[in-house]
Parts: sequence; C-alpha cells; structure tokens
Amino acid sequence: MTEKDPLVIFTPSGRRGRVPRGTPVLTAARQLGVDLDSVCGGRGICSKCQVTPGVGEFPKHGVTVSEGALSPWNAVEARYDEKRGLASGRRLGCQAQILSDVVIDVPPESQVHRQVVRKAAAERVIEMDPATRLLLIEVAEPDMHEPSGDLQRLAKALAESWQVTLGEVPLPVLAKLQTVLRAGNWQVTCALHQPDDGPARLLDLWPGYEEGPLYGLAIDLGSTTMAAHLCDLASGAVIASAGLMNPQIRFGEDLMSRVSYAMMNPGGAAEMTAAVRAALDRLALETAGEAKIDAGRIVETVFVCNPVMHHLLLGIDPMELGQAPFALATSDALSLAARELGLTEIHPEARAYVLPCIAGHVGADAAAVALAEAPGKRDDLTLVIDVGTNAEILLGNRNRVLACSSPTGPAFEGAQISSGQRAAPGAIERIEIDPESKEPRFRVIGCDLWSDDPGFSAATAVTGITGICGSGIIEAVAEMRMAGLLDASGLIGSAEQTGTPRAEPDGRTHAYLVHDGTPDGGPRITVTQGDIRAIQLAKSALYAGARLLMDEMGVDQVDRVVLAGAFGAHISPKHAMVLGMIPDVPLEAVTSAGNAAGTGARIALLNRAARREIETEVRKITKVETAIEPRFQEHFVAANALPHATDPFPNLAKIAPLPQVSFNSGGGDGGGRRRRRRV
Amino acid sequence: MTEKDPLVIFTPSGRRGRVPRGTPVLTAARQLGVDLDSVCGGRGICSKCQVTPGVGEFPKHGVTVSEGALSPWNAVEARYDEKRGLASGRRLGCQAQILSDVVIDVPPESQVHRQVVRKAAAERVIEMDPATRLLLIEVAEPDMHEPSGDLQRLAKALAESWQVTLGEVPLPVLAKLQTVLRAGNWQVTCALHQPDDGPARLLDLWPGYEEGPLYGLAIDLGSTTMAAHLCDLASGAVIASAGLMNPQIRFGEDLMSRVSYAMMNPGGAAEMTAAVRAALDRLALETAGEAKIDAGRIVETVFVCNPVMHHLLLGIDPMELGQAPFALATSDALSLAARELGLTEIHPEARAYVLPCIAGHVGADAAAVALAEAPGKRDDLTLVIDVGTNAEILLGNRNRVLACSSPTGPAFEGAQISSGQRAAPGAIERIEIDPESKEPRFRVIGCDLWSDDPGFSAATAVTGITGICGSGIIEAVAEMRMAGLLDASGLIGSAEQTGTPRAEPDGRTHAYLVHDGTPDGGPRITVTQGDIRAIQLAKSALYAGARLLMDEMGVDQVDRVVLAGAFGAHISPKHAMVLGMIPDVPLEAVTSAGNAAGTGARIALLNRAARREIETEVRKITKVETAIEPRFQEHFVAANALPHATDPFPNLAKIAPLPQVSFNSGGGDGGGRRRRRRV
Repeated sequence: MTEKDPLVIFTPSGRRGRVPRGTPVLTAARQLGVDLDSVCGGRGICSKCQVTPGVGEFPKHGVTVSEGALSPWNAVEARYDEKRGLASGRRLGCQAQILSDVVIDVPPESQVHRQVVRKAAAERVIEMDPATRLLLIEVAEPDMHEPSGDLQRLAKALAESWQVTLGEVPLPVLAKLQTVLRAGNWQVTCALHQPDDGPARLLDLWPGYEEGPLYGLAIDLGSTTMAAHLCDLASGAVIASAGLMNPQIRFGEDLMSRVSYAMMNPGGAAEMTAAVRAALDRLALETAGEAKIDAGRIVETVFVCNPVMHHLLLGIDPMELGQAPFALATSDALSLAARELGLTEIHPEARAYVLPCIAGHVGADAAAVALAEAPGKRDDLTLVIDVGTNAEILLGNRNRVLACSSPTGPAFEGAQISSGQRAAPGAIERIEIDPESKEPRFRVIGCDLWSDDPGFSAATAVTGITGICGSGIIEAVAEMRMAGLLDASGLIGSAEQTGTPRAEPDGRTHAYLVHDGTPDGGPRITVTQGDIRAIQLAKSALYAGARLLMDEMGVDQVDRVVLAGAFGAHISPKHAMVLGMIPDVPLEAVTSAGNAAGTGARIALLNRAARREIETEVRKITKVETAIEPRFQEHFVAANALPHATDPFPNLAKIAPLPQVSFNSGGGDGGGRRRRRRV
Repeated sequence: MTEKDPLVIFTPSGRRGRVPRGTPVLTAARQLGVDLDSVCGGRGICSKCQVTPGVGEFPKHGVTVSEGALSPWNAVEARYDEKRGLASGRRLGCQAQILSDVVIDVPPESQVHRQVVRKAAAERVIEMDPATRLLLIEVAEPDMHEPSGDLQRLAKALAESWQVTLGEVPLPVLAKLQTVLRAGNWQVTCALHQPDDGPARLLDLWPGYEEGPLYGLAIDLGSTTMAAHLCDLASGAVIASAGLMNPQIRFGEDLMSRVSYAMMNPGGAAEMTAAVRAALDRLALETAGEAKIDAGRIVETVFVCNPVMHHLLLGIDPMELGQAPFALATSDALSLAARELGLTEIHPEARAYVLPCIAGHVGADAAAVALAEAPGKRDDLTLVIDVGTNAEILLGNRNRVLACSSPTGPAFEGAQISSGQRAAPGAIERIEIDPESKEPRFRVIGCDLWSDDPGFSAATAVTGITGICGSGIIEAVAEMRMAGLLDASGLIGSAEQTGTPRAEPDGRTHAYLVHDGTPDGGPRITVTQGDIRAIQLAKSALYAGARLLMDEMGVDQVDRVVLAGAFGAHISPKHAMVLGMIPDVPLEAVTSAGNAAGTGARIALLNRAARREIETEVRKITKVETAIEPRFQEHFVAANALPHATDPFPNLAKIAPLPQVSFNSGGGDGGGRRRRRRV
C-alpha cells in the first residue's frame, strides 16, 4: 500500500485504509475488519454485500470522491438487477472495484452483526450473531484417481472458503448430499449450526444458492401459559407470536400440585411431558401459520422456563424439586436436537437450546430475565420482579446479583378470585373508585372507554363485562383501600361503616359491588373478603421475597424496580405500591420490562455470545432459598397489611394518602389467617 | 522415598520403586505406571485390582520377600472373600499395604490393557482398550446453599476421581439420574463411551457397584452373508458368533444388481436399507441368545462392509457407486448412535463405529483387512486377497500399500455352479481325482471320512450328498486339470479323449460326473463346461486384480499370499495355484487369515487406538481402480487359461506337473467366451 493506492473509508464504522487499485469493495471490507455480509463468498449471487458508495465532498473524512471512484456496473450486477432488482445507488460489494478514493456506506441490512432494536421500553439492542447461518460453497468434483468422499470435499471447501470446521452431519443430510451436490452442479448452500467456535453441524443443504431465510422459535414455557416468538434468523425480526395455555394445567394449577401429581401417579411425569411437548408442536405450527412460512424452515429453538417445567420438558421427573434440598437433575444450559423434545413439525434437524437454571427454585426463566434486564451490568441497585404463578425476583448491581423465587400463587393471574378471569376481552382491567361517593368506574379489555363514558354500553355490547383480570383486581383492592372501603388489615367495611350500599353483606363478611350485569343477563361482579385475602397472600409472598434479597444485600431501599412478565407489564405501579407488593421507591423509578423472560429467550436465539454470557452469569448469581429461610416467614407475616406494617413509605405517602380506618369490630375474619403455599 | 522405604517390584512389567511404608499396592502401581485395573477407584468393591504377592527369594530381582511384606488381610478383603470368593494367594491391591520389600505379580485379568490372543493362525494379540468402560464414582450430595445440578456434581466426581471430562448425556440417562443416585446412596457405576481423549458420553448408569460386563458386536456386513461376533468388552473374549444371509439378496445377488435395483426402483435403496437393518436386530438377538446374555447389555457395535453395503446401511442411495467416478458420499470413519442404523434390540444408547472406506470400490471391509493383516507393518511384500462376491485385494509392505477390488462374482461361493451350493452339511468340500483311473474321491461337510473310506455311506446317510460348495468346486476344477480331464484353455475332454466314462456328453460340451446319487434318491453331481467357465471368469478377475497391483508396485513376484475371508480360509493353496487364482509363490508362503475383515472389526471394537490407526492408514493406501484400467482387461483375458498364460510357475511346477493335453478339436465352446461383470 502506497500513498498512490486509493483510500477507502467505510461508514458508519469509520474504518479506513488504502488498498491496491482494483480491489473489490468486499475484499477491502474484509481486510479492514468492516462488518459486511456475504453468503456466497463473493460470487455475485447472494446480494448480501450491497453497499452505497458516496460521491462528492466529504469534509468530515477529508476526501473528495469522484464519479468513477468505483468500476462501472459489470455484467454480474446488471444480471442481478434484471433478475432481482438492485435499489438505486446500490452496488454489489463483491463486484464493484475501488479505483480511486471513495467513501462507502454499509447499510444496516448488509451488516452481519446488525443490531435489532427491541420494542421494549429501554430500547436496548440485540446484536445479530445467530448460531445457524447459510453459506454458499463450491465443492470440488470427485476424481477417481484421488478418491475421497463427497462429504470430505465439502468439508474442505467449508474450511477453505469460510474457515469453518465441519462437525456432525446427521444421516438424513448425508443421505441427500450426493443428489444435492449434483443438482447444484457442485454449488450448494449449507445451513450450519455453530453455537460456539467449535465445529459446525450441517443441518441441511440445498442445490445452488438458497436465499433463506431460516427461522428460530424463542419459547417461554410458563406454568400457565406458553408463548413463542418466531424470529427471522437473518434480520432478527419477530415475524409472529403465539400463546397457548399450558396443557399441564389439567394436572394441577400450580407447580407444586404438578409435582404432587408426578409423585402420586406412576407415569404422571411422563403424561405431563407428553402434554407439554404436544403443545410445542401446536405453537410452532401456529406461529408458522401466522407468518405464512413453512414450519420446516424453523431450525432453532430456545427455551426458558422454571425448574419444574424445565424438568418436565426434558422428561425428568420433577419429584426432587418438591422437597428439600430441591436438587436439580441438571443446572447447566443444554444443547440438543429439538426432536428430542418432541418437536416434530419443524425442521427435522432443528436444534434446541435450553437456558441454564440458577437453582432448584430459580430456573431458566429467571436466567432469561437476568439476560434481558442485566442488573449485573448497572451501577444502581435494581429489583427485577417477574410476576407469574411463581415470582422470580432478582436484586443486584455491578457488584453482586441475588435471586430467589417466591410462591405467589395464581391470584395475580385472576385465578382463585371470585369474579376473576384471565386477561381477555370483557375483563375489567382498570378501576377507579371515587373517595367521596365510593362509586367505581372501570375499563374492560377490548374497549378504550371508561364505564361512565358515553357509548360504553354499546361499545362493550359484544364482549359483555365478564369478570376482573389480574391487573384489575390489584387496582380494585388498592382503590378500595384508598377510598376507605378497606382497612389496613384487609377487612372490607359494611355499608354502614363505609357509607355505600355497594358494601354488601356476604356471609359473615362483606363484598364490594363493582358492577351488576344481571339486568343485561351478565354476572354480578364483586370483590369479596376472600378475594382480598388471596391478594394479600400473593402480595405478601412477593414482597417477602424482595425483602429477603434486600436483607441479604444489606439494604433497606432499592434504586429501581422493574416489573417483568406479561402481567407485570399491566400492573399500575401506584396501585402496586398501595398494596405493598413492591418496596417504596419514587413512582418514576418503577418501570415495566414486558415479557423479560421471552426477551431473554429471543436474545439467546439471536446472539451466540449471549448464551455464553448467561451461562457464566448464572454461576455468579447468589441464590437465596425462600423455603428454608425463617426471615421469609417473618417478612411474609409482616407484609400482610395494606400496605405492609414494617417499612416506611415516604414515596407512597406523596402520591396516595391512605385513610386511617379500621373495620375490625365484628365478623369472623380477623385478617389473621395465614396460609402458606409452597412452590 | 529413602533407602529405608520398602522396595516394590511388579511382575510381569518389571517396574520397581520405593514407596512409603503403608502404601496400598494399587497406589504404588499407579505411581509406578503399572497397568493394574480398578473400576471402583480403590474402594474394595470391584476386585479388579487383584494381585499375587510373592514370598521368599527372588534372585532375579535381588530381593527376599518376608512373610509380612504386606499388611494382613483386612475386613474388606475378608468380606469380599466371603461374598464372592478370592482365589488362594490373591490380595486386593487397594487394601493390601506394602510394609517391606515385596514382589507383586499382576495377573493378566487384572491388567487394564491385557492382551487377547486371537485364534487365527498368526497368533497376533489384541491389546484391550475398549471405548466403553465402567467406572464407579461417589457423587457429592446436593446442598441447598450451594445449588448445583446432580449431573454437575457427577461430572465433578468423574473429573476428580478418574480425570474424565463428561460430555454428552442422553436425555433418557439424564431422566433416571436422580433416582439412580439416590438408590445407590450417591455411589453409581457409569458406563462411559470415550472413543478418543475427548469428553466421554454417559451411556448408562446403575446404583452402586455394577459388575458388568458390557458387550460389543463386531459386524461384518457382506454382500451375501452378515456375520457378527459378540465380545465381552472387559475380557475381549468372543462369547458368541452368528451369521445370516444378507436379506438384500432378494434385490440382487451381487452388488451391481443391487445398485441397479436402487436406480430402477424409486424407494428401492430405502427398501434395501430397511431389509439389512432389520437383519441387524436378528443378528444381535441371535448372538445374545446364544451367549445367554441380555441384548440390552450390548453397548457398542462396529461395522465393516464394502462401499455399496456401507451406503445402504447408512441409508444412502448407492447410485453414484455404480458409475464413474464411483464417488463415495463419505469416506471417513463414522461414529453415531446404533439406533440410527435401526438397531433397536440392543442398549438404546449403544454406539456404532463404521470403519473408513478406502475408495468407491474398496470399502471398510478392505480397511478392516488392512487393520487385521497390517501389510504396511511388514518388510516383506504381502498380497492379501479377501475372497467374496467381490474380492478386496491389498498389496504392500512398510513402504507402500496398494488396494483394489475385483468383481469375481459369486461363483466362488457356489452360486452360478450347476451343482453348486453354499457351504453346509452334505456339500462336497474336498475332491481328489486319481490321475490314472480318473476316479474321484471326496469329502462332504459334516463328515471326516473320504467317500472311499468304509462307513462313509452310513456316516452321510442323514445329510446326503447334496452338491459342491465353493472350496469343493475349486478343488474339482484343479484336480480335473491335473488329471488331464481338462486342458489349459478350460475345455473338458470327451470320454474318448480322457479315457473315462465319467466324461459325459452334455449338449455340445462335456461334463465330469463326480457322484451319482440317483440310486439313493440323491442328485447327480457333475462339473459342467459352464461351471468351468464360471470359475475361469472368477479366478481371472481375481488374478487380474492382484496382477494390476503388482504392476503398480513394479514387481513380478510377491513374498507372501494371505487368503482371507470365510471362503479364503477353506481354499487349498495348491489348488488355487493350479487354477492360477493367485501368483506363483512357494506353497508355504500361502496362509489363511480366516475372516480378516471380521477380525479387523473385532480389533476396532476392542482397541480405540486401532481406530485411529486405520483412519490414518487408509489415507495412505493407494487405490487402484480396476474398472477404468485398460491393463486390468488385458490381465483378465490373459488369466483365462488354467493356469494362466503369461507368468512362469516355478513353484507350481514343483508340486503339480500339469499334463499337456488339448481338447480343442470340436464342440461349440472354444474357451474364448469373455464376459465381464461389474462390481
């Protein structure tokens, strides 16, 4: 390289250098370490290396680019443009040669490690580096005098063209190798699965150039719901999502009851394994159908789930997880064939990656939350709460991360609530109660109007008003407390005590009437004393878990609270603080992370380094076992009040002054009923 | 270690050294690099480390061993003796401590790398180093405060106790891990498959100490017959053998007709794959039944076969092997799950190893012969001929090894012979023809008497005399030539020309009557002109292949000839030389190696290093392609005569002077019919 050699500057990376006149742009990019994609290795076939050369003055870079800085369009580009179309101003990096100083922009879609912006609030990005990719190679033809297998010549081409060491080749792929090589006239596109720097597995191959794309499924396997995101492994885009009820619910609503089912019924664990695996196939077909793609193009799956679901998915009896010391059969991440997990509708050689578990009660779902929220990468102390039938709780900063799980039960998901229901159209999701009149107004899922807005009845005529979902019940209880319908112990006052006929007698206790739909043939929707107790148990468990981690960390306050989980995304932070579900922090320090476990699964699907990162990270997380910690019980009891009895609430006091009422004069339920649920 | 420390001398290795007083014998053996087995790691459970201490003068070693050189029997040894019996004079190496100078003999069965003497003529030995072994380990119990999976603790124990890195753990094994660990009170015996120095796969595990043994199947998959040897993976002993007809015969007798079947019939290759795989299960069950063992204890299989069988076994269409350039789908050795090859009756996690192929016509069977006979390890020039439907031929010495295959067809196996039959009781296997009287005498399989011995009729009454097997037809043709019944061109003389009524007219040619069984209701057994032609074609192909390799090597003579294959074992070297099947060498330089391919399979089964050895060796073997080599055709034509026309026969002349006769006066078959059969 001399001063006479043309200078090439790549944007946005800013990498620059001089290359001999006539060097193809792709070659220059590789020499300068610029991230420019190519599947065909520079044969002008794949068009992945498209670039946009600039012309004119570039004062920032100190160069002027003349018209003929790159070689004119050649026949390969012309043919490509004719057959598939090349956007205006674009060139194929493998064909355009550098003739004089030039500035070349690499558009995002031409970068191998392009970044995908997450939709979530924090706008974090995922760098694309999936384990499976397509590579076009040219294989040497056989020579009778130098006998070698077709596979050995393919391996040689991979090593020479792409520096990839070929590892396992499944028999069905080997069986079609000869036909495909000859059909493609010795050019083939290989789908290679290379989860780390080791040898790559040949998942499939096609004659000639195969555009793809290939797809991956990120699956969040919850106790109650199973959710899957179908991602394009080239662009990283989520092209379809689907959710299903976990069919294991018929064996038990919560995890402990499923463990019991396995213990009590010979073959029970296998039954549950078969049920969840069958549902995986349905999830795959549903997402593929929604995206209108062939499910056979799904070549990777990533799983996150709690330890019991983890074991049941893998076909391991979860018995040991139901009793101390809660030993996992295996805690490390797993890489295996997806068909071993019963996935029969996707690519037959598709792989499955299961995130590592942190401990017997803190699973791969918590690991995924840790990956997505990364509290260990921040300076401030973050409390991450993933609310579900079981809550996963993380607390930490750059110095240390703690984790536990807490058995909240299904109340937050609308179960065990008298008028409760899952989040679906017709379910009350928001409630306000006027502190003076004690009258409620509410919104239901599927309608943007409040119940006292004109046109509400007409707008909800189809769905009806069918019940209260999880976020609705939390708001209802908090609003009742703020309106003075409920005292700090959780007792609902009588009509006399509260001054509203909506506080109706209900046996020896009272219930609050939210909505009477009987004139229209609908249900009477009330919040009963039993509902309050169920919410108290759930929120006490949640808070006690968080408080236990704070004890372990030696702090009384946290800097931020992140509410994760599909449900966490819908909780009103203010109402959660009124209930005492979460520690007292400034309201603006409470954010929602959406389905963080699902996001973690997606990150692991799209980025190989993230798998190594979380595998290392989970071994550093300190696990706190709520089941055997006496202080958990203490915190649990103390957290029963609304809000709980022990901690000061300086922030809450600013936003929601709570009336000093007490209804503990009569009635049978003194607020002292303590129940514990395990798992 | 000081001069005061006791001296310990191990025999037969002769290793010696001083160890601190009180050192267990097993520990001393390990420190001194003595090959002393142990499965339980010194816990006094497995008894694999039995040794025989000597007492008295050992002038050769310069020591005198006193009575109390080892610690007295301890409780562990006493209990072991009581429960399982300890042979007189034996001690457990892990229990007996060295107190003063001692000479300790390690009996062969206590050596890990003990040597197994092969039954074959050469008495070579196989050093035991199987890929799968049993190891007893003690796994740490789970600790709630240091959560880790049971599998991770098992991996740690394996690394610490045995320096083994745990690799893949199949899901079904993982699924039973927790139960087995607890049933064994945290002691488990692991079956580990470690084909090289890399991580070991956990094939299975049992609570506590599991004696074993585990078994392996060495399978020789021939075009016509499939043979399996069931071996004890601890002792190396062959405990059962079984053979089956290859069920693919119904798709074609020889390989080329099976390739044609695959080409002509959609799904034909898959049909043949299914047929051979089903037969593998029968082979496994048959050997296990014969040995009275549970087939589920068979954890390893090794396959040797020709390229077409290799591809059909793997589920690869062999089409490409039927046409130039005869490209293999894959030539390297393969390691895979045995169930992928359809083996469903053996251990579900059993492994399969398939030896590498040398080229499109020279398969894993030839590689196995190369492993068993190792011509590349000798100074003299050895010609190895594995006779079958296709003959594999190797020629070489320490400098260079050549290989080819030759399409001999099934005549040597008794097929395409008018009175031919497979080797079975009642088949004529040996023949002598008196040169004067032209009268034959013969022996049949299943009877030690000659046909002119008293009592022969009675002894063969049950089997009858049913036909001529492959070795019988070779002797018959050679004897006919030596007795002057046949001229050098292969023509049978008439009764007039030969002076015996046994030379009967047979259409326009003649046939020689070996035995007329019609008075007893049996067949008339003759050797027809067509039979002679079939044998001529087969032997010409065989010789032409050998001669082609000699040309390539630039030699006119070889030092040794090894006849391999089940059939090769029964050929009389003298008769083979009379026919001109093999080059002229001193008679004593012709040896039989028995089923060398099967032996090669057994070596690869029992010794891991042998697998690496043959994988390296096959890449060094020079492949000669008979199908495209014009000289093959020349040699083939020239080799048609009995013996062939070109080479001198100094050795043959000494043992079998051949009459100068010629019957080429009349008749339609002038001996010039040339047919070629491919593959």
